Amino acid sequence: MSQMTLTALPNYPMVEPGDDLAAQILSSLNDATLSLADGDVLVLAQKIVSKAENRYGYYNAVEPSEEAKKLAVEIDKDPRLVELILSESKEVVRKRPGVVVVEHRLGYVHANAGIDKSNISSDDDNPRVLLLPLDSDASARGLQQAIATLTGKTVYIIINDSAGRAWRNGTAGMAIGTAGFEPLENLIGSNDLFERPMEVTEVAVADELAAAASFMMGQAAEGAPVVHIRGAKLQAADCGSRSLIREKAKDLFR
Amino acid sequence: MSQMTLTALPNYPMVEPGDDLAAQILSSLNDATLSLADGDVLVLAQKIVSKAENRYGYYNAVEPSEEAKKLAVEIDKDPRLVELILSESKEVVRKRPGVVVVEHRLGYVHANAGIDKSNISSDDDNPRVLLLPLDSDASARGLQQAIATLTGKTVYIIINDSAGRAWRNGTAGMAIGTAGFEPLENLIGSNDLFERPMEVTEVAVADELAAAASFMMGQAAEGAPVVHIRGAKLQAADCGSRSLIREKAKDLFR
Repeated sequence: MSQMTLTALPNYPMVEPGDDLAAQILSSLNDATLSLADGDVLVLAQKIVSKAENRYGYYNAVEPSEEAKKLAVEIDKDPRLVELILSESKEVVRKRPGVVVVEHRLGYVHANAGIDKSNISSDDDNPRVLLLPLDSDASARGLQQAIATLTGKTVYIIINDSAGRAWRNGTAGMAIGTAGFEPLENLIGSNDLFERPMEVTEVAVADELAAAASFMMGQAAEGAPVVHIRGAKLQAADCGSRSLIREKAKDLFR
Repeated sequence: MSQMTLTALPNYPMVEPGDDLAAQILSSLNDATLSLADGDVLVLAQKIVSKAENRYGYYNAVEPSEEAKKLAVEIDKDPRLVELILSESKEVVRKRPGVVVVEHRLGYVHANAGIDKSNISSDDDNPRVLLLPLDSDASARGLQQAIATLTGKTVYIIINDSAGRAWRNGTAGMAIGTAGFEPLENLIGSNDLFERPMEVTEVAVADELAAAASFMMGQAAEGAPVVHIRGAKLQAADCGSRSLIREKAKDLFR
């Protein structure tokens, strides 16, 4: 029988720049009386990875370009925030008052380039926002390696973010970084229950687990930025999350 | 500590038209030595709901319209299948060879109107495909009521389907029918950890759980079309899943 358990790790501290996420996670796992096993998955909220990596953008350090000033008027946002969004992006995909959807420099299509103002301490005289990690696959891989060093266990890592979607209301978790497993499972060559070849060939397993973990993070009364998953049978692979991103030329909705 | 367990129900039979899904689910739960508790969630693959409701479309019964014939050439599909897709749809959103994305009559934007050929027994002389339920919220509500009658327990129901997404490769589960709970949790009025109002206000919890359950269904070696979830703290509500669908006028990607 196939079973999977998700645990939102308790007592997770507020993360500060330079913090050792591997050590924090092991401490929280200990508080949950969980010890890691090979094949466990750890899902981290993007926010704590960005905080540990000091990916803050400070309004007072930003000089908005003419392009940012113009877009800021169009979408009714602070030109300094717009400058940060543009500097994190390859191109603007859609805009309207209150909303800008961009292609992030790492390839995800994402509102506001994933820049966030909630759950961040900020100074009213010099507001700050949190940018996505510089390279979230590299962050995930580094954490996987740190945990292997500390525990001898091979775990899989997902960095998730809440994202808006086309056609659907509400946000859902998506994987913006992974380490250790195949994020897109390929069913090519599989047969269905009646021995006919499967038509749908790829399942975004990393996004499905990111969504499940986002649900758990949202369920915790206090901040629970790390979710432990046991029982997900993932395919080990030495790759990150890039295969989840649809090439622009193959995307009917760009 | 917040914890959630998903179980892919074992020994689920092949579903035939007229089958009693509530009775089948209770039997599978029994095989898993699980008994239902108030607040448990049952996620059903759309396929078994459609099969029980005899939502087959038979190619030999279809007379393709001129519109279907023309589109069939454009997208390189059987005109009888295209006729079925169009008859299940409000409009074609995007098309290219091999792909047609439509607005289903129930409002979801979905490839091929959710019509599927895999895991369906079919006769080569009269191929058949499986359409979505006539009203998947009504199907979910009916199942919730049947289970309440049989067990006295109030459970929440999700009917899920695997769907392609804009911008991302691979399919992920989405909720096409729900019963008993608020599928879109509203955080308006909530404050963040620093007592500032939350900016992102709506979370598509039904889609997040549908994605988690789809992952479990895909993980089971044999067909596992029902997943039991314990530990999801959902908000009880007397509504279906329509709030998950973004109005066309508010959708930047239609």
